[in-house]
Amino acid sequence: MGDPRPLPPSLSPPYVAVIFTSRRTTAFDDEYSAMAERMEKLAAQQPGYLGLESARGSDRVGVTISYWRDRESARAWKNVAEHRGAQRLGRSQFYEWYRVRIAVVSEDWGHDN
Amino acid sequence: MGDPRPLPPSLSPPYVAVIFTSRRTTAFDDEYSAMAERMEKLAAQQPGYLGLESARGSDRVGVTISYWRDRESARAWKNVAEHRGAQRLGRSQFYEWYRVRIAVVSEDWGHDN
Repeated sequence: MGDPRPLPPSLSPPYVAVIFTSRRTTAFDDEYSAMAERMEKLAAQQPGYLGLESARGSDRVGVTISYWRDRESARAWKNVAEHRGAQRLGRSQFYEWYRVRIAVVSEDWGHDN
Repeated sequence: MGDPRPLPPSLSPPYVAVIFTSRRTTAFDDEYSAMAERMEKLAAQQPGYLGLESARGSDRVGVTISYWRDRESARAWKNVAEHRGAQRLGRSQFYEWYRVRIAVVSEDWGHDN
């Protein structure tokens, strides 16, 4: 088997990035893990989904970026009913705070050793 | 003292995001920490710098986003001599791989409990 976390591919700019920066609360670890896993799978099934990158450090601050073909597909994902339910739980239970940024990626390049 | 990791502020769109996704090698931990700390300080001194968000998980995959007033200030930072030296060390020692994405943020919103 290859490395399970290889270099993410180029995604043929322009495309849309939804940058989600958040700080986890100290509670609901199991519920959060289940929700995050479910949302990753559900996002990957949506039209226009291109990929997802995510990291969270020991200070509980995390950055998750989902990539989309265009603004319409990013907006449609925001409004998927099950995702809206997860957003409500995020505000009430999972996150101390979060910020969302909508961006258009104009170029990308990579390096792999 | 307040929370040392508060909600990042809105940055008055439009502005530029440089998204750096990487996987750390398993070596050079001390050198990497010193380099990362130095680069954060140096970036914050550059014209057009707006902020930085960063997280890295136990799988060694990290996402670091620096925010800039415009493409010119983002490009100028890429070419700062000391930063170019750090980029060379990144390729040769610190990262298994990385991808850089240049994006323009058109809107941001936040939530704070």
